[in-house]
Amino acid sequence: MSTSPNPLIQDIVFDQAGLVPVIAQQYDSGEILMVAWMNRDAVVESVTSGHMCYWSRSRRALWRKGETSGQVQRLVELKLDCDGDALLARVDQVGVACHTGRRSCFFRTATSGGWQVTAEPAVDPKTLYPDKP
Amino acid sequence: MSTSPNPLIQDIVFDQAGLVPVIAQQYDSGEILMVAWMNRDAVVESVTSGHMCYWSRSRRALWRKGETSGQVQRLVELKLDCDGDALLARVDQVGVACHTGRRSCFFRTATSGGWQVTAEPAVDPKTLYPDKP
Repeated sequence: MSTSPNPLIQDIVFDQAGLVPVIAQQYDSGEILMVAWMNRDAVVESVTSGHMCYWSRSRRALWRKGETSGQVQRLVELKLDCDGDALLARVDQVGVACHTGRRSCFFRTATSGGWQVTAEPAVDPKTLYPDKP
Repeated sequence: MSTSPNPLIQDIVFDQAGLVPVIAQQYDSGEILMVAWMNRDAVVESVTSGHMCYWSRSRRALWRKGETSGQVQRLVELKLDCDGDALLARVDQVGVACHTGRRSCFFRTATSGGWQVTAEPAVDPKTLYPDKP
């Protein structure tokens, strides 16, 4: 019935929708895997469970990363920026982070002619989401 | 009078405020330096000038990173994520990224007792902004 007493929450500046952007970075290689959003509950669940839980803005629900695909992210270290309005999660990614089957969601690179795809899928997304039509 | 014809703009999903979050990552070390925001003009200026230009939400103006402090960021590579609603800028940071004088804005680390400061300033912020009272 009350807001969480977790001491991390009070210093995070959530936006008007109650969300904060989170960068997921592979902890050892430094690769940026994805950017997602968290609400208060997602922050508390992630630090409590040790596995990344985001807020899905499209589904308007907690999104336990890898729950369907098995591509979970173990939380190694969570950092907060100077303004308190962005989080950096250093994680250990099982498999791939992107729903397209690529390791990272950032697979398009700017060129003078537009965005160029510069990474190919490591796995077939159909194997990640077998129940999807 | 018209929107920019830059071919990168059309694939970026700007939010209702016309902004997109941008991660700045040191291109060689992989260190995350900061998260900021860009509008269309900031994207075009950054890719055209080769130096990072953000949108300051507090000042409501273009923010040419390092214009006052000299701590500029040269743009090495710009990437777009799968959903088109987040940018990753791989940059070469001169000096420090954070207004506190730290290399990175992410200098607080989560512990069971709260956030702990885990990086000290590399330079005195007074030397970065000598005209500030």
